[in-house]
Amino acid sequence: MQIAQVRGTVVSTCKTPSMTGVKLLLLQFIDAEGQALPDYEVAGDLVGAGINEWVLVSRGSAARIESGYQERPLDAMVVGIIDTITLANRQIYSKKDEYRAGNQ
Amino acid sequence: MQIAQVRGTVVSTCKTPSMTGVKLLLLQFIDAEGQALPDYEVAGDLVGAGINEWVLVSRGSAARIESGYQERPLDAMVVGIIDTITLANRQIYSKKDEYRAGNQ
Amino acid sequence: MQIAQVRGTVVSTCKTPSMTGVKLLLLQFIDAEGQALPDYEVAGDLVGAGINEWVLVSRGSAARIESGYQERPLDAMVVGIIDTITLANRQIYSKKDEYRAGNQ
Amino acid sequence: MQIAQVRGTVVSTCKTPSMTGVKLLLLQFIDAEGQALPDYEVAGDLVGAGINEWVLVSRGSAARIESGYQERPLDAMVVGIIDTITLANRQIYSKKDEYRAGNQ
Amino acid sequence: MQIAQVRGTVVSTCKTPSMTGVKLLLLQFIDAEGQALPDYEVAGDLVGAGINEWVLVSRGSAARIESGYQERPLDAMVVGIIDTITLANRQIYSKKDEYRAGNQ
Repeated sequence: MQIAQVRGTVVSTCKTPSMTGVKLLLLQFIDAEGQALPDYEVAGDLVGAGINEWVLVSRGSAARIESGYQERPLDAMVVGIIDTITLANRQIYSKKDEYRAGNQ
Repeated sequence: MQIAQVRGTVVSTCKTPSMTGVKLLLLQFIDAEGQALPDYEVAGDLVGAGINEWVLVSRGSAARIESGYQERPLDAMVVGIIDTITLANRQIYSKKDEYRAGNQ
Repeated sequence: MQIAQVRGTVVSTCKTPSMTGVKLLLLQFIDAEGQALPDYEVAGDLVGAGINEWVLVSRGSAARIESGYQERPLDAMVVGIIDTITLANRQIYSKKDEYRAGNQ
Repeated sequence: MQIAQVRGTVVSTCKTPSMTGVKLLLLQFIDAEGQALPDYEVAGDLVGAGINEWVLVSRGSAARIESGYQERPLDAMVVGIIDTITLANRQIYSKKDEYRAGNQ
Repeated sequence: MQIAQVRGTVVSTCKTPSMTGVKLLLLQFIDAEGQALPDYEVAGDLVGAGINEWVLVSRGSAARIESGYQERPLDAMVVGIIDTITLANRQIYSKKDEYRAGNQ
């Protein structure tokens, strides 16, 4: 999976019927130092992620594993909201503190 | 999924029979700031997208999820026409306005 | 799918038996302006494409969709020979004319 | 597969239920000379890999092959801890020696 | 498929049981001009390829198509040893001659 930050939403009215009811988030990828990358992904959302939250995104056929999504043409899905990222004994991200020790 | 703009069409007469009846669009990828990228994709079309429209494209096995496409050797498919892209509270693309606030 | 030009062939005698009888083409990818890219792919061929022809190549599990190829370890397949590529109202490639208007 | 070094862990409390019980490792990719690359992956762990160990990571649907993981939306999995990497007759990595001859 | 040269081997004792008995080769990718690229892949081997041989590698689910490999978490597999690569009428690689005409 990749780490990404929720930046916004994408709305599509004219779509294939199997996409109905899927909330589409615009995600910006984050590198392992916590810096924003230029790359993005539009993904479905399994967990109700909100703007600015850091999430885990699975790509490829993993996006269609969950019950109810197997027949939808998705290739990316938010599967979890990140609480903490810890490198060795140093925490570089904590949702609770909105604090990244690596970037002080 | 990625965001792309419909730039044109590709026609192939001599093709594997399972590709018969699939309209092939030439898509140019768009970055999260609304700028055109050099990368492109030739994709099938589930939604009747027209020239210059912004669309969502799914890649990989997602392109063969829809009924009628499971036996066709496609690896990219247009699954929706984009109405709006909103970052936090700022709309960066609206099909209705043909307006990208981020590029004024 | 990506656009590629047939540049040559690859021959392998010592191979897994399931690859027997698959003609392997060396393809060079072409960008959306019709220029050759440094990237290449070795792909199976469903359509009898010849040297210098422009083709559509599908990658991933799409390469094993066709009857007779489902048990072969292929990850790329030529699925059609391109006749024309048209951007908006401008034709940038026509097999018939061997002419790329965009590069005059 | 790619070679990667275990750098840390990622914790997610709010996640899709099928991700429950999967330990998530933050991996940094290593190039064929043994140098760290900027790219990373968050992967599940089948083998109990520890911080700083070099591991093999499989991506895509390979991450869901093992019994117990087929219904989880994972796209990357640690499948082995590396003991040695040998180029021709030169050993460039040995877990036992924590020694990389190529970087002396 | 991609063209790669066998550079060495990777040994893993602590691995998921389904990986037992799979020989793992370290492959270096080769570009269409026959030059070594920085990218590598660790792949299973279906054909008994030896050091320095040029091989074809399939990636993704193609690595698990062969009987006996469907339940192993592999994402790359050597499927053939290359005898010759021919561009139009010019041979750029021949295993027999260990000769690359393009690089004289």
